[in-house]
Amino acid sequence: MANNEKIQQLQHIDHQLAKLLEQRVQLTREFSTQEKSVDLSFLEEVSDENRTQIMEIFTLLNKPSSPKRTLLVSRDAQPESTIITSKGRSLGRTPQIIAGPCSVESEEQVMAVAEVLQEQGIKWMRGGAFKPRTSPYDFQGLGKRGLEILRLAGDQYDLRVISEVMHPADLEMAAEYLDVIQIGARNMQNFDLLKAAGKVQKPVLLKRGLSATLEEYLYAAEYILDAGNSEVILCERGIRTYEKWTRNTLDISAVPILKQETHLPVLVDITHSTGRKDLLLPMGRAALAAGADGIMLEVHPDPAKALSDSKQQINLEEFRHFMEQIRMMNHPSF
Amino acid sequence: MANNEKIQQLQHIDHQLAKLLEQRVQLTREFSTQEKSVDLSFLEEVSDENRTQIMEIFTLLNKPSSPKRTLLVSRDAQPESTIITSKGRSLGRTPQIIAGPCSVESEEQVMAVAEVLQEQGIKWMRGGAFKPRTSPYDFQGLGKRGLEILRLAGDQYDLRVISEVMHPADLEMAAEYLDVIQIGARNMQNFDLLKAAGKVQKPVLLKRGLSATLEEYLYAAEYILDAGNSEVILCERGIRTYEKWTRNTLDISAVPILKQETHLPVLVDITHSTGRKDLLLPMGRAALAAGADGIMLEVHPDPAKALSDSKQQINLEEFRHFMEQIRMMNHPSF
Amino acid sequence: MANNEKIQQLQHIDHQLAKLLEQRVQLTREFSTQEKSVDLSFLEEVSDENRTQIMEIFTLLNKPSSPKRTLLVSRDAQPESTIITSKGRSLGRTPQIIAGPCSVESEEQVMAVAEVLQEQGIKWMRGGAFKPRTSPYDFQGLGKRGLEILRLAGDQYDLRVISEVMHPADLEMAAEYLDVIQIGARNMQNFDLLKAAGKVQKPVLLKRGLSATLEEYLYAAEYILDAGNSEVILCERGIRTYEKWTRNTLDISAVPILKQETHLPVLVDITHSTGRKDLLLPMGRAALAAGADGIMLEVHPDPAKALSDSKQQINLEEFRHFMEQIRMMNHPSF
Amino acid sequence: MANNEKIQQLQHIDHQLAKLLEQRVQLTREFSTQEKSVDLSFLEEVSDENRTQIMEIFTLLNKPSSPKRTLLVSRDAQPESTIITSKGRSLGRTPQIIAGPCSVESEEQVMAVAEVLQEQGIKWMRGGAFKPRTSPYDFQGLGKRGLEILRLAGDQYDLRVISEVMHPADLEMAAEYLDVIQIGARNMQNFDLLKAAGKVQKPVLLKRGLSATLEEYLYAAEYILDAGNSEVILCERGIRTYEKWTRNTLDISAVPILKQETHLPVLVDITHSTGRKDLLLPMGRAALAAGADGIMLEVHPDPAKALSDSKQQINLEEFRHFMEQIRMMNHPSF
Repeated sequence: MANNEKIQQLQHIDHQLAKLLEQRVQLTREFSTQEKSVDLSFLEEVSDENRTQIMEIFTLLNKPSSPKRTLLVSRDAQPESTIITSKGRSLGRTPQIIAGPCSVESEEQVMAVAEVLQEQGIKWMRGGAFKPRTSPYDFQGLGKRGLEILRLAGDQYDLRVISEVMHPADLEMAAEYLDVIQIGARNMQNFDLLKAAGKVQKPVLLKRGLSATLEEYLYAAEYILDAGNSEVILCERGIRTYEKWTRNTLDISAVPILKQETHLPVLVDITHSTGRKDLLLPMGRAALAAGADGIMLEVHPDPAKALSDSKQQINLEEFRHFMEQIRMMNHPSF
Repeated sequence: MANNEKIQQLQHIDHQLAKLLEQRVQLTREFSTQEKSVDLSFLEEVSDENRTQIMEIFTLLNKPSSPKRTLLVSRDAQPESTIITSKGRSLGRTPQIIAGPCSVESEEQVMAVAEVLQEQGIKWMRGGAFKPRTSPYDFQGLGKRGLEILRLAGDQYDLRVISEVMHPADLEMAAEYLDVIQIGARNMQNFDLLKAAGKVQKPVLLKRGLSATLEEYLYAAEYILDAGNSEVILCERGIRTYEKWTRNTLDISAVPILKQETHLPVLVDITHSTGRKDLLLPMGRAALAAGADGIMLEVHPDPAKALSDSKQQINLEEFRHFMEQIRMMNHPSF
Repeated sequence: MANNEKIQQLQHIDHQLAKLLEQRVQLTREFSTQEKSVDLSFLEEVSDENRTQIMEIFTLLNKPSSPKRTLLVSRDAQPESTIITSKGRSLGRTPQIIAGPCSVESEEQVMAVAEVLQEQGIKWMRGGAFKPRTSPYDFQGLGKRGLEILRLAGDQYDLRVISEVMHPADLEMAAEYLDVIQIGARNMQNFDLLKAAGKVQKPVLLKRGLSATLEEYLYAAEYILDAGNSEVILCERGIRTYEKWTRNTLDISAVPILKQETHLPVLVDITHSTGRKDLLLPMGRAALAAGADGIMLEVHPDPAKALSDSKQQINLEEFRHFMEQIRMMNHPSF
Repeated sequence: MANNEKIQQLQHIDHQLAKLLEQRVQLTREFSTQEKSVDLSFLEEVSDENRTQIMEIFTLLNKPSSPKRTLLVSRDAQPESTIITSKGRSLGRTPQIIAGPCSVESEEQVMAVAEVLQEQGIKWMRGGAFKPRTSPYDFQGLGKRGLEILRLAGDQYDLRVISEVMHPADLEMAAEYLDVIQIGARNMQNFDLLKAAGKVQKPVLLKRGLSATLEEYLYAAEYILDAGNSEVILCERGIRTYEKWTRNTLDISAVPILKQETHLPVLVDITHSTGRKDLLLPMGRAALAAGADGIMLEVHPDPAKALSDSKQQINLEEFRHFMEQIRMMNHPSF
């Protein structure tokens, strides 16, 4: 048989196949999972050498159709980008900077940072009140008192304040103080917390898990949207790899992928990702160049005395320099 | 200077150094973290070429002494192994087998498995009632009804029943039905759950996180002991790597390390680790050979119809075969 | 339409599909890659909602058929296990132990080890003559002189000697001294070396790459077989992960997978995998329990003075103890 | 003892320590490795509770002084950046673009790409003649004929041509055709190739290994410099992680780290890193924003028919669009 003939025959088969496949997909659309596991007796009519490949195709046909097409977080479900607005300021439109100390330690400390944020035209402040710590013997945060201090600073310096909540029972109380509730990397698959955050009337910043795939990350966000809260902010913060010269490996490619796959704003935490102060500027620039809706970083009036992450926070002077550099280089809007 | 002389001089210096270092360690033992950050002005007297190395040594001296030595989970704190006893059966003495379905689906299903466990002389059953699922649209488990079914089967077939709890608020209720509370891999750093599990009067089986280091794992267990519950069982269940032919990479070396570092019983979950039925037997044997106190695996009367993990569970006949093989090969005691 | 009817209709479609698919697979079997990329115009006749799923199936059909079925290393190509015999001793039948120093440093050192190997009934010795070192300034091995020393010891103590070769140009010379040529983890995808090793008349021990998937590993072995040498020995030696308490993570599950997928002998290097002397015994036992055809480990008369890997090698007394333990526990045959 | 007193005493001890440490460092500077392993008998005079910490310090003192300070690749050895010049065009000054097909397939194909490169003002072309392929049955490249085609295109369109060499024996021949020799990721620790590349009179582009740490990467480069060739170009190309939505995880933080630690030019391969055409633009921008000296990408006149990597290469029209976008956005200089 000549090659041309073969190609024509192939095209003929493909048209018939496409028709049959469509009929089958249509027919099984409403079948439940169990019913789909139909008998495969016909495989016996197939010759031995082709059986494996044909089995693969039926496996594909019998597997439940990919749910991604209908996820609430997906761009297919909502083509336009979600813009999150808090007290007249938006996330998801022009890039924003979110800064503040790792832990809230005292009113004095938070006010010192807040003042500089205002001076630099920044509208969002982060600060940890409930701290997830690897060791039970490390500083666990000021708790509710920390939230009060953040609120105070937010009101005085026109800042929207963001802080992590770890316990579903704390969400309602925390929402009274905070403008954005953060769910941390370690809790990305704490499904009860996700569901509870879906009931809160505040935006939720959900960090990517320490070694979460992007697919798992989208599903984690889906838990919150599915529970009723559509104001979710994503945040890449580095993933765990074998590399030892950075704390985590910042996965910048996550930014354009998340922007394509979802309609949610995407931030990059440039402090926790690398854990190195000397990389803040290049990684901040890279994140923005890759299309991030904002960058988060840690600032402390006296990092050497910080009760957590003392090595990776920059001081107020370094922060002013950082802002100057980032403005000069490619983001005059900040 | 001759080599011999140099070595003598070195020994002399080393003795003086050791004396000084001991004085210093003693002196700073009670210093708080802040006080230790003393001035490093003396470094200016050191020559340029040696400064880096000498700095390193002072960094080592100034860092807080490793807390591992005093962790409650550590063998240094308790040299003898912890034996966990439930209804006359022990974990931590001779190797045990824990088996059961991934999810509790019905009374009929659980009873069918339980009957075979008894037939095989097995004393521990696992089964999921609250299921942590990546997608909010997957089967989430029967909840409290699942626990009731497990209890029923446990009572009828003399099985100690184990099931995962995900929410601190469910712990007390679950403890009424279960003999061992499981905390899953995704919740290994859900610190509120860990603290709450420390208040429960039942043993807690804590799985290693999806990509937790062994150090983080020990600290997670420490949260439970520190909160008051010393009956903790560890369980290696595979870690996330780039390898695609297994679901996770079972880190068998974790077994002897955890046995050395802690006094707690160490299990290996041979189903979730590789996600392959065909590897159950070699990995079960390897786990026991490495010193594990037991192995966990998933058994289902009809895996093809299972509501979760249908591909990795074995059926009752395969389970009988597994037991026969593992007895024959090196563990006649089962 | 009733459910029964739907299922009958499904079965009817499936039979037709199977027939068409077989025709298609048959037809494209001899097509070259380019010809298979036929026009997909028929997809336009398919309804929008089903297009993605049907596209997936055609992608599967058009991808080159999996070459694994015909790899020379595969059990499908050769169901019976390859047994490698050297001077009357076999690898692939009963488990073997391969031991020796990390680097060959002197005749005296190698002879001291060889004597203890013979005393313990061991028939295989390893030792590095060409050392792949991360830094150009580290000890690079004795080279050809190292091979001579190994040969001397092999002859005197009835040991088959194994050493790594890094350069294709050295293969022929090395084959005169060695009984087994080793290709190290860093060279697993040094394709010229693999091809050259395929021309050598000696068995080749190919180590798994530092972060090679098992699939890549099989293809690397295939290079050697495809070039004409069917005597290949595989060796799992740990993979790179984020875990810090071991040098690498020993992937024991690789053993049963490699034994299933290929007909080649599979060893486990228990020294390089974890890099910890205290884990040799449990990991050696685990490797053997998982079905390994042998274990490799490093022994040195005076590890503290070793020119490489001084921390992970055991001394002669520790080696005697190791052998005693492993014999007592489950391998009296050693 | 009052706190003040303690601090004074501490300062006194620290001065004495610094003096002794300097003496010791000085003394052992010329000791060989063996001599440094001196007797640790003095440790017996140290109290039990402090022994571990003091041991740590002596371990630090006895380990060979960190070689990083004196590596030839290091900024400490050469503060000013290395600029690599080829036919009047520089790498290391303003960002450059290196583009071309994955494999050289025909003169026609290469000329079609080269013409567009010239049209877009680009001065560097890449193309594979010797292809490292996971499977021995995949297209292995045109070999020497591929180099001839590249040279032809280079001469006609004023392009400096870059291609991978895998075998030391091919280096001299390849250097006659190429302007820059590439060593691929799989060969990053092929030390014989590195040493041989150190003898070549052409710049060498050394890619980071599939899962190499940055430290290992620097040492690999050091092999080339140490062998006599100081014209080395580094290239981050993604590292192996668990993430499945990209082929590799592009480690952008490697760029500023490599720029800080070394004086060598640093490129980013934006094609191989993610393996996704849709990420070329954001990742290209991110790489440049992070300080890369250039980006590499793959362009093919008809990607669907490419003999390798057909899915990740862009066609000529897409490449024109890419250039337009990258110029518009932040690099008008291109």
